[in-house]
Amino acid sequence: MSADETKAVVLLSGGLDSATVLAMAASQGFSCYALSFNYNQRSVSELNAAKKIAHLARQHKILDIDLSAFGGSALTDADIAVPTDEPEGIPITYVPARNTVFLSLALAWAEVLDAHDIFIGVNAVDYSGYPDCRPQFIQAFEQMANLATKAGVEGQKITIHTPLIDLTKAQIISAGVALDVDYAATVSCYQADEKGAACGVCDSCRIRQQGFAAAGVVDPTRYQR
Amino acid sequence: MSADETKAVVLLSGGLDSATVLAMAASQGFSCYALSFNYNQRSVSELNAAKKIAHLARQHKILDIDLSAFGGSALTDADIAVPTDEPEGIPITYVPARNTVFLSLALAWAEVLDAHDIFIGVNAVDYSGYPDCRPQFIQAFEQMANLATKAGVEGQKITIHTPLIDLTKAQIISAGVALDVDYAATVSCYQADEKGAACGVCDSCRIRQQGFAAAGVVDPTRYQR
Repeated sequence: MSADETKAVVLLSGGLDSATVLAMAASQGFSCYALSFNYNQRSVSELNAAKKIAHLARQHKILDIDLSAFGGSALTDADIAVPTDEPEGIPITYVPARNTVFLSLALAWAEVLDAHDIFIGVNAVDYSGYPDCRPQFIQAFEQMANLATKAGVEGQKITIHTPLIDLTKAQIISAGVALDVDYAATVSCYQADEKGAACGVCDSCRIRQQGFAAAGVVDPTRYQR
Repeated sequence: MSADETKAVVLLSGGLDSATVLAMAASQGFSCYALSFNYNQRSVSELNAAKKIAHLARQHKILDIDLSAFGGSALTDADIAVPTDEPEGIPITYVPARNTVFLSLALAWAEVLDAHDIFIGVNAVDYSGYPDCRPQFIQAFEQMANLATKAGVEGQKITIHTPLIDLTKAQIISAGVALDVDYAATVSCYQADEKGAACGVCDSCRIRQQGFAAAGVVDPTRYQR
């Protein structure tokens, strides 16, 4: 790598948040290595969206990891229906330890790349009640990462960047529009069809719709109905 | 599960250490769920060993996860030779963030099982210089795990058990012999052949040989020469 290249691993789901994070990391001058996962999620169109958005990255890897082997979530277990009503507590769409697993794999790639920066689009405002989207989780992960790795042992600092953590969905969308993020290419829906059209009724669709409305931005999402 | 069943997820590589840990967890009365990984490691015979040893577990899962996609280690990158000389510093057989990734996936399964105990056979004495085998790493992971999960949010405590952490290899072997661990079935070698016979010269083989000698136990390992 060139002397002035600073590498970062960016977790890229293909949704609105991670697309914005990738644009932010690139705009800050990081050379971005985007990482997506094929974890037998219901919505494969999310991965197709990730491929479209990844042009801002220097490299894009899609890693296969079969989280459905463990079951336990509506997003990976075909026997559990995606709910359409307002959830209370931790919803059934929560995938057990998902961000822990994804950040761990980002850390593995960062270590190989000799990168010390990892970006993730977690959000503590519209976070759907997932425990692994909270700031205290991210801080604990960063602390662990610095003890887990060669970089940490050698006194370098690994940083987990969460540029969206305190933003509302509307603020995320406004920031992304300013960075020319193509939101029409992103997929947020938990049960989008093969062409990436959204259901419009799941928790994730509702949060996204409200975000565009609050930002005063025309919603470019394609809906199934 | 029955009211008095306490579940634990046990990381099981098929090596000497994890075989001992599984026997320890079972002897403590845990209902064990053994988790192994097919991570494109050089030595597939390790996984065959894990299958043989897993009879002590209530369930055994082998999860595919292609860590060779990242490269960077002699254990997953066919272009990097396994060294046979005494290593200095962090050796090339170190797989980036491996224990972080494995513990994260154990945490995911634990969450689905509603288990609050995870066992891992890390060892701070004969630990080959890997940063993710140190007690301070395990403590940081445990802290993170309690913030990452439903159990943590709901006030339950997740514990990462490391019963080998302060033992020498000889002490591990003595403890395992007392629990009838079949060490002939285990594979420690970084480059064992298809039938599980060990090279006898890699770092892992050397540590194992010295352990049996120091414990005064006949080494049941099958060597290639």
